[in-house]
Amino acid sequence: MSDNDSIGKQMYRLVEELYPICRSITGNGVRRTLEIVSRSTPMTIHEVKTGTPVFDWIVPKEWNINDAYIIAPNGEKIVDFKKNNLHVLNYSSPINATLPLEKLKEHLYTLPDHPEWIPYRTSYYQERWGFCLSHNQFIGLKEGDYKVVIDSSLSDGHLTYGEHLIKGETEDEVLLSCHICHPSLCNDNLSGIALMAHLINYLSQQKLRYSYRFLFIPGTIGSITWLSQNENTAKKIKHGLVVVCVGDPGAFTYKRSRDGNAEIDRAVLNVLTKAELSHDVIDFYPYGYDERQYCSPGFNLHVGSLSRSTHGCFPEYHTSADNLSFITADAMEESLNTYIAVMDVLENNKTYINTSPKCEPQLGKRGLYDSTGGTHTNDKNFQMALLWVLNLSDGSHTLLDISERSEIQFSTIKQAAAALCGTDLLVEASPSG
Amino acid sequence: MSDNDSIGKQMYRLVEELYPICRSITGNGVRRTLEIVSRSTPMTIHEVKTGTPVFDWIVPKEWNINDAYIIAPNGEKIVDFKKNNLHVLNYSSPINATLPLEKLKEHLYTLPDHPEWIPYRTSYYQERWGFCLSHNQFIGLKEGDYKVVIDSSLSDGHLTYGEHLIKGETEDEVLLSCHICHPSLCNDNLSGIALMAHLINYLSQQKLRYSYRFLFIPGTIGSITWLSQNENTAKKIKHGLVVVCVGDPGAFTYKRSRDGNAEIDRAVLNVLTKAELSHDVIDFYPYGYDERQYCSPGFNLHVGSLSRSTHGCFPEYHTSADNLSFITADAMEESLNTYIAVMDVLENNKTYINTSPKCEPQLGKRGLYDSTGGTHTNDKNFQMALLWVLNLSDGSHTLLDISERSEIQFSTIKQAAAALCGTDLLVEASPSG
Amino acid sequence: MSDNDSIGKQMYRLVEELYPICRSITGNGVRRTLEIVSRSTPMTIHEVKTGTPVFDWIVPKEWNINDAYIIAPNGEKIVDFKKNNLHVLNYSSPINATLPLEKLKEHLYTLPDHPEWIPYRTSYYQERWGFCLSHNQFIGLKEGDYKVVIDSSLSDGHLTYGEHLIKGETEDEVLLSCHICHPSLCNDNLSGIALMAHLINYLSQQKLRYSYRFLFIPGTIGSITWLSQNENTAKKIKHGLVVVCVGDPGAFTYKRSRDGNAEIDRAVLNVLTKAELSHDVIDFYPYGYDERQYCSPGFNLHVGSLSRSTHGCFPEYHTSADNLSFITADAMEESLNTYIAVMDVLENNKTYINTSPKCEPQLGKRGLYDSTGGTHTNDKNFQMALLWVLNLSDGSHTLLDISERSEIQFSTIKQAAAALCGTDLLVEASPSG
Repeated sequence: MSDNDSIGKQMYRLVEELYPICRSITGNGVRRTLEIVSRSTPMTIHEVKTGTPVFDWIVPKEWNINDAYIIAPNGEKIVDFKKNNLHVLNYSSPINATLPLEKLKEHLYTLPDHPEWIPYRTSYYQERWGFCLSHNQFIGLKEGDYKVVIDSSLSDGHLTYGEHLIKGETEDEVLLSCHICHPSLCNDNLSGIALMAHLINYLSQQKLRYSYRFLFIPGTIGSITWLSQNENTAKKIKHGLVVVCVGDPGAFTYKRSRDGNAEIDRAVLNVLTKAELSHDVIDFYPYGYDERQYCSPGFNLHVGSLSRSTHGCFPEYHTSADNLSFITADAMEESLNTYIAVMDVLENNKTYINTSPKCEPQLGKRGLYDSTGGTHTNDKNFQMALLWVLNLSDGSHTLLDISERSEIQFSTIKQAAAALCGTDLLVEASPSG
Repeated sequence: MSDNDSIGKQMYRLVEELYPICRSITGNGVRRTLEIVSRSTPMTIHEVKTGTPVFDWIVPKEWNINDAYIIAPNGEKIVDFKKNNLHVLNYSSPINATLPLEKLKEHLYTLPDHPEWIPYRTSYYQERWGFCLSHNQFIGLKEGDYKVVIDSSLSDGHLTYGEHLIKGETEDEVLLSCHICHPSLCNDNLSGIALMAHLINYLSQQKLRYSYRFLFIPGTIGSITWLSQNENTAKKIKHGLVVVCVGDPGAFTYKRSRDGNAEIDRAVLNVLTKAELSHDVIDFYPYGYDERQYCSPGFNLHVGSLSRSTHGCFPEYHTSADNLSFITADAMEESLNTYIAVMDVLENNKTYINTSPKCEPQLGKRGLYDSTGGTHTNDKNFQMALLWVLNLSDGSHTLLDISERSEIQFSTIKQAAAALCGTDLLVEASPSG
Repeated sequence: MSDNDSIGKQMYRLVEELYPICRSITGNGVRRTLEIVSRSTPMTIHEVKTGTPVFDWIVPKEWNINDAYIIAPNGEKIVDFKKNNLHVLNYSSPINATLPLEKLKEHLYTLPDHPEWIPYRTSYYQERWGFCLSHNQFIGLKEGDYKVVIDSSLSDGHLTYGEHLIKGETEDEVLLSCHICHPSLCNDNLSGIALMAHLINYLSQQKLRYSYRFLFIPGTIGSITWLSQNENTAKKIKHGLVVVCVGDPGAFTYKRSRDGNAEIDRAVLNVLTKAELSHDVIDFYPYGYDERQYCSPGFNLHVGSLSRSTHGCFPEYHTSADNLSFITADAMEESLNTYIAVMDVLENNKTYINTSPKCEPQLGKRGLYDSTGGTHTNDKNFQMALLWVLNLSDGSHTLLDISERSEIQFSTIKQAAAALCGTDLLVEASPSG
């Protein structure tokens, strides 16, 4: 990795490297993925035994696969896992048989609406075998006997996930969670993995108020497993985001937490709105990715999900078209920067006290009018930010409240608070740490 | 009454039978009306003596009428109560006299804007006599002496009303109230009487959580009388609707209760919205029908009013054009079904507890994915309803809350809750009965 | 002053008389202004010594000026304070010197966008001297030496302000505040001075529930001085308005108090909305006139600001074009009447109790139906107002609440409450006085 590359290009290259690996909810694909990410990003790898009860569920068998293919009646290998791992029904049980076309068809999955694309299909909780292929290939299949081989195994083993904690001044945590169980799909969710890795690298170099917990987990069963084994830790989580589909160049989508107007919801919307990033906002609903588990009523964590195009709503979703050309380095870098801006709001969203609350203090004699001459890009805005911070710092407004009410960017409000803290006029309400 | 007829046709036929009767706030017209309804619908008839004090009012004299007409100078009977009882000013004092046209005109009421129609006019609390006629007839009247006869009586007697209580599991009551004091007007309010009769018949055959109280009363003085004599019973009323103008084919109108967002208001709007019935919603105002009394500040009951066209806002209102051709069997049946759907929401609007609130439970192993195969019309909706009920059943959301937030029909939410109660996943929060 | 003149014309004439005086935040211009207003309006004149600490500020030196001019190289007097006092930088330090054009230009202020107008500029807290002139004149200046004379003085003295209190039944106060520090500018704020003077005259003749405090003060330093020296009195202020820019014929602008939905905010908006006066509403922001001080977090008084065109938003603002032709007698009179209507809402916004809250009382027997025959312009509205007042007078709604909910003019609601108080049906909840 060249240090001269833009962050976006580095993210893209990580996705490129991870793309060929066949992942599932368990197995060596996940292990290999986490190893690669670990090379440049610190992480602890956890292994949880098959059969471990996790709330209403049980950790499933480990799935591994060497090869899978179909040989046509004419001897040609027409569907080949080694060319694209989407060809095998993910978590497929092993098979080695010869079947007539009619029987084979019961195990084939296609996308008639997108006849060039291979669908991504899974069968985790019902033992099945199957192949996915393009609809064009499917309709060309001739009568005859087909040899099918899936050289996979389902056996006792482990569920593997990665975890990293950056300790901040307080034990209060921000959770960032991405699913790592999808095979060769880029936006969903190699983009999320790459963003999390680079966010770890970035935040590790900052002085932080919150502790940040990163989970690289298989979808659903992974978050259930983690929550089941970390109930006390979960209580420390004050804010969180599920990181998915952050690589395509579409508009942002923010799905609110179950509570709907939690600080994380307001922080994300503040960033998207003030930065004038085009975006949609959708209310929480109990479907989607791991926010379903974090927002289950027994936890009700303040966890939302910040994506680009919404999963399930773009045609490439869960198909072979979610490939390396569907995502861009620029989009990934913009997504990362947006996450960083959200974390910046959380980090700095404190409450201050105006120590001179009766009438306005004289800013001129403290050099706060002068200071606006050249150091700030938008002087008038900065001047108004000073007045807003003074006016609302009565102990019942955070900087996010002030940014929302004044309609001034959070970063400007933060700068104004910092400038005022440099005088005798403003102090933090109850300093953390 | 043929059992093969649709409910709407049965309702229409009841209106037809009641239409010719001359009703007023007291007297034999009301008694005859209640007798006819009682033939197929159980009801207790109450008689309250003239002169009984009821809050700020006094039960008025009983009014009865045999005949009324005007004889023109040429000897022709030109206005005849026996042809249309709207011709007499309702509650008119008796008269037998001969007057010149000029004097007579002081006692005549017409509708210049609808010259073919006879208006409906009353004078309950000021003794007067008068006739109502079409404006066309009025302008054709020639000079000369007219003989006027109103063979009515105003004397001590009783105020008559009907009442029926269906006992449910709890003493909490739902009130349904219609006024029965209008003479030959179909929509206002024979349609309300017919709807209430059939709603009694329907609910009598159900297992009910609430008790249902039905009042067939003269407008204003009737509800004042009932409330005055049943103050303790009134405290049991948790929800209620005033049933008026439910027979015309116009859009629905819902007038909110005084509190504005009571459970009855939300239940009605849920039904109208989710069923995509075109409708208007109007805020409470202290005018209209008996909701004025139920929502007076000393009671402040949660009583709204669900109509088709709003009283006072359709041209036929309080005229001879509110006749048998203004209402339809279909509209009445749709109104009845809408009332039934509202009662269904009230009956089933309970709070449940997800007994497995940490992460989602595994629905598949309980057959709740399978169950969606063919038994529900809208499978995906049902699946989402299961997830919503689980997610929000934390003890602080009723099924109506869940329907509103999920935007899924209440009936689907109810089905989902029932399916989950059939497993180990959901229990009622505090079972009634 | 002729008594036959309209109030608007009297207001206009007061502005005419005050227009030529050169005012500043201190000095004889302010004294002369208050003397003139005092001739017809009672007021106490306060003098606060230079150097007095007032919160974070210090009362500044007194500024007085006799003359100021520029003599061109050709001997012509080209800029003359005696022709227009805007020509001198307000609060300018004295100077008597001869300078080349190049040096002079550092002390000249113009408005390139409005080349005919003289700008209004000040330098209160940094000692400077300067002249303001039209841009057209500026670009005609020729090279050479200019003689500049500013015969002003900055010396220890006093800050002068006027105050008047009208005592009402209670000690609770309504504050009205206008700045008096601007020189020859009509809308900003001689119009405010004239409105306050006439509002004093009007309210002095009324029986009042509230006490009314009027402050005629220099902007910023004046309100800071008053608040600093009257902290206990400030606690009595329940409602208030800053009176600025009330003379131009533009639409009204209401700037809310810091709390945003205080009674004063609702009262002003009720008047503007119900009277169908075209208006804009803007939320509080910590910039503008003396509401900045009254709404500082240490006081947080419920003080808004009711203007015509918003200060800073009309091109004539702070220029010589804000002159006697920019304002009109009619606009000032309409502004005054609007202020009076707001005070009328505050005075009468009481809570009443319906003494007959169970069902509607019989209005007819108390003559309240008859009374509607001819005495009220809008009978139906008055009838509805009676019903609304009865329905909502349960102890938890004020007349303003009732006006807002019923969408009936406050004045009609007030009349209805008065009529009901004349019967046995309504009493004041907790009478003041």
